[in-house]
Amino acid sequence: MRAWLPYASMEEAERLAGPLPDGVEIDLFRGPARGWPDSIGEVEFYVLPYMLGTTALDRVGEMASLRVVQAQTAGYENIAPLIPEGVTLCNAAGVHDTATAELAIALALASGRRIGEYARDQASGTWDPQWGRSIADQRILIVGHGRIGKAIEARLAGFETASITRVASRARPGVHGVDELDELLPDADVVFLIAPHTPQTDRLFDAARLARMPDGALLVNVSRGPLVDTAALTAETASGRLRAALDVVDPEPLPSEHPLWRTDGVLLTPHVGGAASSFPPRIGRLIGTQLRAFAAGEPLLNVVN
Amino acid sequence: MRAWLPYASMEEAERLAGPLPDGVEIDLFRGPARGWPDSIGEVEFYVLPYMLGTTALDRVGEMASLRVVQAQTAGYENIAPLIPEGVTLCNAAGVHDTATAELAIALALASGRRIGEYARDQASGTWDPQWGRSIADQRILIVGHGRIGKAIEARLAGFETASITRVASRARPGVHGVDELDELLPDADVVFLIAPHTPQTDRLFDAARLARMPDGALLVNVSRGPLVDTAALTAETASGRLRAALDVVDPEPLPSEHPLWRTDGVLLTPHVGGAASSFPPRIGRLIGTQLRAFAAGEPLLNVVN
Repeated sequence: MRAWLPYASMEEAERLAGPLPDGVEIDLFRGPARGWPDSIGEVEFYVLPYMLGTTALDRVGEMASLRVVQAQTAGYENIAPLIPEGVTLCNAAGVHDTATAELAIALALASGRRIGEYARDQASGTWDPQWGRSIADQRILIVGHGRIGKAIEARLAGFETASITRVASRARPGVHGVDELDELLPDADVVFLIAPHTPQTDRLFDAARLARMPDGALLVNVSRGPLVDTAALTAETASGRLRAALDVVDPEPLPSEHPLWRTDGVLLTPHVGGAASSFPPRIGRLIGTQLRAFAAGEPLLNVVN
Repeated sequence: MRAWLPYASMEEAERLAGPLPDGVEIDLFRGPARGWPDSIGEVEFYVLPYMLGTTALDRVGEMASLRVVQAQTAGYENIAPLIPEGVTLCNAAGVHDTATAELAIALALASGRRIGEYARDQASGTWDPQWGRSIADQRILIVGHGRIGKAIEARLAGFETASITRVASRARPGVHGVDELDELLPDADVVFLIAPHTPQTDRLFDAARLARMPDGALLVNVSRGPLVDTAALTAETASGRLRAALDVVDPEPLPSEHPLWRTDGVLLTPHVGGAASSFPPRIGRLIGTQLRAFAAGEPLLNVVN
């Protein structure tokens, strides 16, 4: 039995994933830049390297023994079509909640308190205090009430917000359905967007929905870029009517000449919601649990196909 | 009875401060840039304009009727020596808690998640994802356990920190005394500094104390600049050993050629801890309460002299 794990050393693998099961041969593989292991025909349990898009599956056709692909991402819409028939695909739902919810709060606070502008002022040594906008007293709308949406709400608890309103695909007690979104948007000062990308959420924030947000409101997107119509958001922010703080955009990477990069009131991070120190210990625990279950012939977690 | 209030219009004064008492003549004064009111010899209740340092007291010698000075700041060490004998000085303790605690969290998150670097990348349209450091799993030390220290702690509740340790001038249950600081620093990944500036806290973080912080640790200062030895912090950050996120520095404004502006791992904001949208409604409520108490001959809040 052979597994490919995305670590630099066996020491790191054991420190983060815990005890590795007896009888499993381990190869370390962090992406094709350093070449592919010779065991490509024998790998049964393959943990995809992180932040490589689909390139880690470029040679999946040669993986004749493959039985399990463990992704390190929660989203798997790009990967799923590349997984061969009969191979189990597991995602990493839950592992990114901490880092992603934290980045959502970081973006909202940094946008309101002008940290991006002050960081740019550092280059010229410019001391130029400006009034900022607190998250306190603001009416918050969280669109998406999965694990990360709940983690965002948990982090807002101490911030004296005026209100927190929840929206999910279907209404349930305490949560509005997405069909109520148009009525809710005019009363939202800060919108956190953390719904999955599906045909139903594609361009959920189109020009008409953005137009329903009140003047000066902030859109924070930590989900997937295509949930927002980039051209419409560019227009609404370029005019100064809305603000945006975006970890994801459509397309990615955003072309360097795109006007959104240099629009006042727009704060951009390059899809790093999960890329933080809280991630390795959490994904390590999942990888170890999954590998030990696989070796023992027990059921895997997070099977998505 | 005459009062000077720091508003642009009477409408704004009443909206933020609430009903103004009968029998009080109001002048609107937001700083000497637009000239001083002719009533300078008659003003009894003077609310200092915000963010002007001591310039709002440049003509205090002409204020022959002055009885009360209401500051909009919590700190008053610079103002107190300028207040004439017999005049009551009131500070704005509590009013800045919300905005300042929020900025402390914003700085810690933005530093860890590299938001300043990404904001600078926006100018060139550079999409360059890097790993960040979460506040999750970090050992937090809060130095100063007054209202803002507690407000910082309240905001950290949802962030999955590994631990939160409190330090104040004197030990009490659940709070360490500042005499234990040397023993606590080696185990602090993030230090929030929010103690008042006193002779005892002047340069509390000198070279020796900074040296006790572990490699890669972050110092967040939202208190007063002189609590930190700027030269020592510049050395520790320039070497890459420590990180810093500072709303206050010594001196202020930081001279534009100072190396701290352009040191990797240093995030600077220009003393804007209180300057956010949560401030006007909160200071307005205090100003209204104080003015109505003064007009009614009742005791004032927050008397500090």
